[in-house]
Amino acid sequence: MPKYIIKIQYDGTGYAGYQIQPNGNTIQEELEKALRLMAKLPKGEHIPTSSAGRTDAGVHALGQVVSFDYPANIAPDALIRALNSILDDSIRVIDANQVADDFHVRYMATAKEYCYRVDINRFPDPFKRLYTTHHPYRFNLEVMQEAIQTIVGKHDFTSFCSTKTDKEYKVRTIYEAEVNLDTKQNELVFRFYGDGFLYNMIRILVGTLLQIGDGLKPVDELQRLLSVKDRNQAGPTAPPQGLYMMRVEYQEDPFKKQ
Amino acid sequence: MPKYIIKIQYDGTGYAGYQIQPNGNTIQEELEKALRLMAKLPKGEHIPTSSAGRTDAGVHALGQVVSFDYPANIAPDALIRALNSILDDSIRVIDANQVADDFHVRYMATAKEYCYRVDINRFPDPFKRLYTTHHPYRFNLEVMQEAIQTIVGKHDFTSFCSTKTDKEYKVRTIYEAEVNLDTKQNELVFRFYGDGFLYNMIRILVGTLLQIGDGLKPVDELQRLLSVKDRNQAGPTAPPQGLYMMRVEYQEDPFKKQ
Repeated sequence: MPKYIIKIQYDGTGYAGYQIQPNGNTIQEELEKALRLMAKLPKGEHIPTSSAGRTDAGVHALGQVVSFDYPANIAPDALIRALNSILDDSIRVIDANQVADDFHVRYMATAKEYCYRVDINRFPDPFKRLYTTHHPYRFNLEVMQEAIQTIVGKHDFTSFCSTKTDKEYKVRTIYEAEVNLDTKQNELVFRFYGDGFLYNMIRILVGTLLQIGDGLKPVDELQRLLSVKDRNQAGPTAPPQGLYMMRVEYQEDPFKKQ
Repeated sequence: MPKYIIKIQYDGTGYAGYQIQPNGNTIQEELEKALRLMAKLPKGEHIPTSSAGRTDAGVHALGQVVSFDYPANIAPDALIRALNSILDDSIRVIDANQVADDFHVRYMATAKEYCYRVDINRFPDPFKRLYTTHHPYRFNLEVMQEAIQTIVGKHDFTSFCSTKTDKEYKVRTIYEAEVNLDTKQNELVFRFYGDGFLYNMIRILVGTLLQIGDGLKPVDELQRLLSVKDRNQAGPTAPPQGLYMMRVEYQEDPFKKQ
């Protein structure tokens, strides 16, 4: 069977996360249901999918990548149109391509980019309540900008990983990390670009960085946390609705048309 | 009792409209419930409110104005804080003031501004599905820009008023009307500024203007519709979720602090 990848965006608000689970509506379930309908498979059968990464309940994506084997040859643009006509408007396929059989959407990903948006208005903006985290406290941007550079490079991120993880190896390399003020949107925007991220890693990093910005923790707190390797000493896990999976990178762009 | 006005924003998505009604959750009901809790009134009693205008189910507001008599003296900023601490995050009080007893929030309004946002992406943006109307067809912007000028001035808008209206007098004056392309957002944005608007008037205007832009109707269609005074000949009522009540104007700014 030919193998395809799709690039998808989703508003994670109404979902129990990306990955299929017994209770709760998930993005993966919606995708596999749409693929089954497209392929006209009977209800018991289904087309399994793999994704570049999981996202939690309420977390959004602008560039999640998903792969699957499909029981027929189909042009990428026809695949986009067919899936979008079936899927709910909260999930959108924005690109598609056929890939080689040995392509692996997760293992072959070389880097990922996430961003985290914080609404800094005095009162939460009604139109951003599902798309940002509200943090109306006075903060020191320069201190956060200095602190966030601590994580750039190869580090053991045990302190920034949920204890619910199933991963043993907690070393990851962060290529770029920054936090900036978007004065037009009145938002604080964090950006993380690295070879991989642990369970809740970005949300714990943001929770801790906000404490540093608020003056509750010193500027070298991240340095200390990297050394102690203890999740309990890090800051709180920031809420899901500010987090966006932005981009997945591969050695060669798998969406590049031949 | 002292009289107050508040300026509110709301995401109309989850609501059956602004005005209280027997079935369905409304903005007005949420506001009056919050005021009752604030004033510690028993469940049977309530603080009635008046608004500058109604909005339909799914329609949003960035500058709705609401007035009420409150059984105690309260500083405007304390009123803002108290209401925002009670209200759901989908409704936000952004300004408040005490006004004279004879202030009337609806009759004394001299002008209102609305805007209507249209998502012109090929496939609907998942993050805009509740905040725009999707219209992916090729359109002629210049033709729409020429057509929209037809309604500027004093006209009988019978053709652009829902037959469900309770208003007899259908003459309104439009001071400014425009439609522009927001290339950054990939949106078509309509703006209407006038002394008042009839029931569904902006949504019918937008529905008709999109037909003109699509080439389904000639550029002088609005002119013809103004003359025939027949709702059935106008275009469809555009969906509610693209519509925003932006601003209410008064002879003197009632939010200006003494």
